[in-house]
Amino acid sequence: MSTQGEASEVETYVYSLGAAAKRAARQLARAPAATRNAALLAMADAIEASADTLRNENAKDLEAGRANGLADALLDRLELTPERIRGMADGVREVAALADPVGEIADMRQQPSGLTVGKMRVPLGVIGIIYESRPNVTIDAAVLCLKAGNATILRGGSEAIHSNLAIAEVIKRGLAAAGLTDACVQVINTRDRTAVSALLKMDEFVDVVIPRGGKGLIQRVSEDARVPVLYHLDGICHVYVDDHADLQMAEDVAFNSKTYRYGICGSMETLLVHVQVAANFLPKIGLRFSEHGVEMRACARAQPLLKNSLAATEADWQTEHLGPVVSIRVVDDMDDAIDHIESHGSHHTDAIITNDLQRSQRFLREVDSASVMVNAATCFADGNQYGLGAEIGISTGKLHARGPVGVVGLTTQKFIVHGDGAIRG
Amino acid sequence: MSTQGEASEVETYVYSLGAAAKRAARQLARAPAATRNAALLAMADAIEASADTLRNENAKDLEAGRANGLADALLDRLELTPERIRGMADGVREVAALADPVGEIADMRQQPSGLTVGKMRVPLGVIGIIYESRPNVTIDAAVLCLKAGNATILRGGSEAIHSNLAIAEVIKRGLAAAGLTDACVQVINTRDRTAVSALLKMDEFVDVVIPRGGKGLIQRVSEDARVPVLYHLDGICHVYVDDHADLQMAEDVAFNSKTYRYGICGSMETLLVHVQVAANFLPKIGLRFSEHGVEMRACARAQPLLKNSLAATEADWQTEHLGPVVSIRVVDDMDDAIDHIESHGSHHTDAIITNDLQRSQRFLREVDSASVMVNAATCFADGNQYGLGAEIGISTGKLHARGPVGVVGLTTQKFIVHGDGAIRG
Repeated sequence: MSTQGEASEVETYVYSLGAAAKRAARQLARAPAATRNAALLAMADAIEASADTLRNENAKDLEAGRANGLADALLDRLELTPERIRGMADGVREVAALADPVGEIADMRQQPSGLTVGKMRVPLGVIGIIYESRPNVTIDAAVLCLKAGNATILRGGSEAIHSNLAIAEVIKRGLAAAGLTDACVQVINTRDRTAVSALLKMDEFVDVVIPRGGKGLIQRVSEDARVPVLYHLDGICHVYVDDHADLQMAEDVAFNSKTYRYGICGSMETLLVHVQVAANFLPKIGLRFSEHGVEMRACARAQPLLKNSLAATEADWQTEHLGPVVSIRVVDDMDDAIDHIESHGSHHTDAIITNDLQRSQRFLREVDSASVMVNAATCFADGNQYGLGAEIGISTGKLHARGPVGVVGLTTQKFIVHGDGAIRG
Repeated sequence: MSTQGEASEVETYVYSLGAAAKRAARQLARAPAATRNAALLAMADAIEASADTLRNENAKDLEAGRANGLADALLDRLELTPERIRGMADGVREVAALADPVGEIADMRQQPSGLTVGKMRVPLGVIGIIYESRPNVTIDAAVLCLKAGNATILRGGSEAIHSNLAIAEVIKRGLAAAGLTDACVQVINTRDRTAVSALLKMDEFVDVVIPRGGKGLIQRVSEDARVPVLYHLDGICHVYVDDHADLQMAEDVAFNSKTYRYGICGSMETLLVHVQVAANFLPKIGLRFSEHGVEMRACARAQPLLKNSLAATEADWQTEHLGPVVSIRVVDDMDDAIDHIESHGSHHTDAIITNDLQRSQRFLREVDSASVMVNAATCFADGNQYGLGAEIGISTGKLHARGPVGVVGLTTQKFIVHGDGAIRG
């Protein structure tokens, strides 16, 4: 466990989950797609059959949440309605229907030595998921990991613990129906926060941890983690309206990027406008934002062109508002726009609106973000829209998986080598 | 810098290297392949033109090393002979001649929304390399990273500091000849060990750190790192001789796997032999090992079949000998062999010798190692033999790059999205 002194009871417990997950991962790596899919379909059925139990357990969490003064928005995220329970079951069946990523062999080529060398796609092994209070993450994350052949250790927010443990029971029934061990999906059943640190340090068992949550969680993870981490950080996304843009298209795309859904990480936070088109473009989109109740925080050059706008502060350029607020800035040219994106953005998703081919190519190449778009709304940044199927999140890191992470991102490739008695001389 | 209190002088210095590297990485990401290759070719010329200077500076390190009682093996690794200097220049020219990985666009597909979504290969950004006293790593690592469009911060062993700084001067001349900034390749010029911790914590500037060195270095890295790390750990590699093997082939491959070069991480450390063929196979290979001066440490079933062998201890099964020592064990069947590999190996490279197709397929699928081989010697595990060109190392981690890491492993892919004014409804 690499910790000093004696392990606490919680550490010993988490360690036992890790050891069991590692053994389960070997079983899963051998299990054919048919077995994994059978488990998923059985889970979907079990979810529907257990709707009443799930709602009863969820009611305990809701009651405790209300007693503890949880905010309405959090209570809403916590609640399992009949529709959400049906949605969970449907989501599981969609994942079961995805193409199987495991075992794919690619790039087999004969080398000068006579060896044939290529790659085989295989599960990562054991994945830890740390997330906040939405109980549906328990099932969504577990099934994506299972589809990709991985064992999972889940640690949800303590406010949802009854819901999560009830979902874990349903998952177990699905696993059992396909002859897979319980330990393929384990939910940490303690509210003790040292369980998270223990999970993050267990590098002999855990191949990667995926944290889903706010800045507090992310900071703790980055301080404690010895295991590799796939981060899903802020989306401070930009739309840059070039002077060679179709301005009607620019207006529609920028408006949609902000207003499609305020709460998603692909939502536009900052609109950048080329100085040559600002006078023509800004009053029109300003009116639309204003009528839609979107608060505008503008730079000194943009503010006079935007009725009802406020002056932007330096902090606005690096804030993920996740609400009806947009920062707006006039830039001198595309280089100025790219400089702004590189110095204030979060490397998540950024778009250019232009009809100039060379500029579109430079923007695609030079903007160092997980998704770079031309003439499309930033809110398209998700795994389903990219053809990946369901996603576990949108990675803002550069290693392994960048941008939306679907089942393939939950696998790895090993080299496979065929010889005929080859030796090196 | 995420450290508490005031930054020390060394931390401030390393931080300034990080900021400069980040700016250089943006310049490099825009530089076409022709520019990066021109820098590489100019470096190769500069190495040859500076051979005398390199040897003079290297002599200072050798003298200090002798005065400090450095072991002969380490002094040998430290020395820059005329042949090694020529080898460095040739190596740089080979990297320049590799196919360029940057800018490759793949998997562009139209999605139901009308968007076209695909991936573009781009540099990782800023790479930190921490290594021990071989000065040729300075040039090898820098040129591979530069080929892939990355800026590099190098921290070599302090015993080689004069050699490394002299090589850094040569690298700068190459960069200048192609119009690239100095900061594309920077060598940390202090012996102060806090420089390493500072580098490992600078997650706003450093995209990945690659440590090359012994267990002490690796442990410090894993404790201090906030930045992602590509680990290159032990190679405890196995050859399993199945009862369906061609025993002459098995003997040749196993012998070659051990004796081709003792010091490489792909060298076989443990030979596993199916009980049904042990009596026939072991005496013959035992004789070859014995004649070749290879010490055998054998399990209780193998020892009577191997003249001059010692009894293996539990520690032998998990030791990377890197020398003329081999551990030998008789196993009941392939499952027993796989269990041994999974519980004692290091997930580096493992081979089966068999003519049974189903067993070869199960072994390929179930052994969770970076390279899994059928009827080939483990010592083939390297980037050149796999057709990747020069390698920066052999990753034993599962994320991002697994097994030999060439220039492609030093890049990442971002999503690129083309629309025609697409909005989400």
